[in-house]
Amino acid sequence: MTTLFIFPGACSFAAHVVIHELQLPISVERVTFGDPDSPYRQINPTGRVPALLLDNKTLLTENTAILPYLADLKPGTELFAPAGSVERAQIQGWLGYVATEVHVAAFRPINRPERYSADEAAFPGIRERALQQLANALKPIEAHLAQADYLIGNRFTVADAYLGVFLGWSARVGVLGDFPALQAALGRFRARESVVQTLAAEGLA
Amino acid sequence: MTTLFIFPGACSFAAHVVIHELQLPISVERVTFGDPDSPYRQINPTGRVPALLLDNKTLLTENTAILPYLADLKPGTELFAPAGSVERAQIQGWLGYVATEVHVAAFRPINRPERYSADEAAFPGIRERALQQLANALKPIEAHLAQADYLIGNRFTVADAYLGVFLGWSARVGVLGDFPALQAALGRFRARESVVQTLAAEGLA
Ligand SMILES: N[C@@H](CCC(=O)N[C@@H](CS)C(=O)NCC(=O)O)C(=O)O
Ligand SMILES: N[C@@H](CCC(=O)N[C@@H](CS)C(=O)NCC(=O)O)C(=O)O
Repeated sequence: MTTLFIFPGACSFAAHVVIHELQLPISVERVTFGDPDSPYRQINPTGRVPALLLDNKTLLTENTAILPYLADLKPGTELFAPAGSVERAQIQGWLGYVATEVHVAAFRPINRPERYSADEAAFPGIRERALQQLANALKPIEAHLAQADYLIGNRFTVADAYLGVFLGWSARVGVLGDFPALQAALGRFRARESVVQTLAAEGLA
Repeated sequence: MTTLFIFPGACSFAAHVVIHELQLPISVERVTFGDPDSPYRQINPTGRVPALLLDNKTLLTENTAILPYLADLKPGTELFAPAGSVERAQIQGWLGYVATEVHVAAFRPINRPERYSADEAAFPGIRERALQQLANALKPIEAHLAQADYLIGNRFTVADAYLGVFLGWSARVGVLGDFPALQAALGRFRARESVVQTLAAEGLA
């Protein structure tokens, strides 16, 4: 059976939501972080989540690959769009933007400043600058969601599932105050049945 | 006509290579960086490249979306793989890995430490740590390319086109010394006709 590896509330939450959205027959396993001897390291040497282990033992990694792959398991649903279509490229573009400019450019230094300097004295400055970068990265999304309820095509897609996770993180670090459209989007996200189910399944409800 | 916006030698180089690989009828325009009044800002408010402006004025951004979209303009070539296939997810996975862990997690702080701290005194430490992160991020790619000439499927795909750009950048910052398989991959990349053509077209030959 295909297995998705997750950590509660981590960026793997989006893939878990998609499994609930599409009722995919995929088992979900929780990993331990920061333990170099964890058995998960045998499966995924980087220790990161999400990762999707297929029946044939191929390991897929990266949100920008796993979310499209999961959606393509049921072609033709509203969550994604056909290969070759402009809409598919737009959805993939939002996934890419969130993965690079929101997750890694902003939340990585907020959550893990030690990956950006060996000097602890520099951490507060790194965190502060990263919070500004987060606000910058959210601005184009706010502008977009001020005009529409969803990122693309007036429906919930894998891009919204992925963004939803980082809207929750953004609320937690206190930057959503200036972004009413993002607050509303987070409210819609949390009200979705698949999200309620995923919160419960990850022990976060 | 569809237009690709680039800056010579930037990460937009990969999309430019794919245009040469597939001989796509797409015009290529060079932008100016760092000028808030540049006309390009009217098209793309972030000012970033690559961006692909379609005939209908839709703007596509993000390497992880543009490279697949370009390949899908000629379905069935060796550069990509069919929607729903595991190989497509693996190619998209490498694109995602390079975009997040190589480009934004490592080269962004190397090239733009001012985005990671307001304190100039912290820049050398940020650069040094980012060079370590770059070496860490390259290790799994080295392991992979020690076994195979290409990232996926024993042929040059959009993932190799994208990786090639960052192998060149890695050589420039002096980290390829410990990575013989990556050096060999960079040699193969530079010998490719499409890459030679792109270097010439960007004025870098
Ligand atoms: N580029 C990866 C990043 C994955 C990632 O950073 N996952 C985090 C959880 S949100 C993780 O596993 N962190 C543990 C670690 O980095 O050691 C992706 O987009 O999937
Ligand atoms: N997440 C974007 C990043 C694009 C990016 O950072 N492009 C650089 C060139 S390599 C750029 O335009 N830099 C100018 C700037 O950031 O102002 C992608 O993967 O396409």
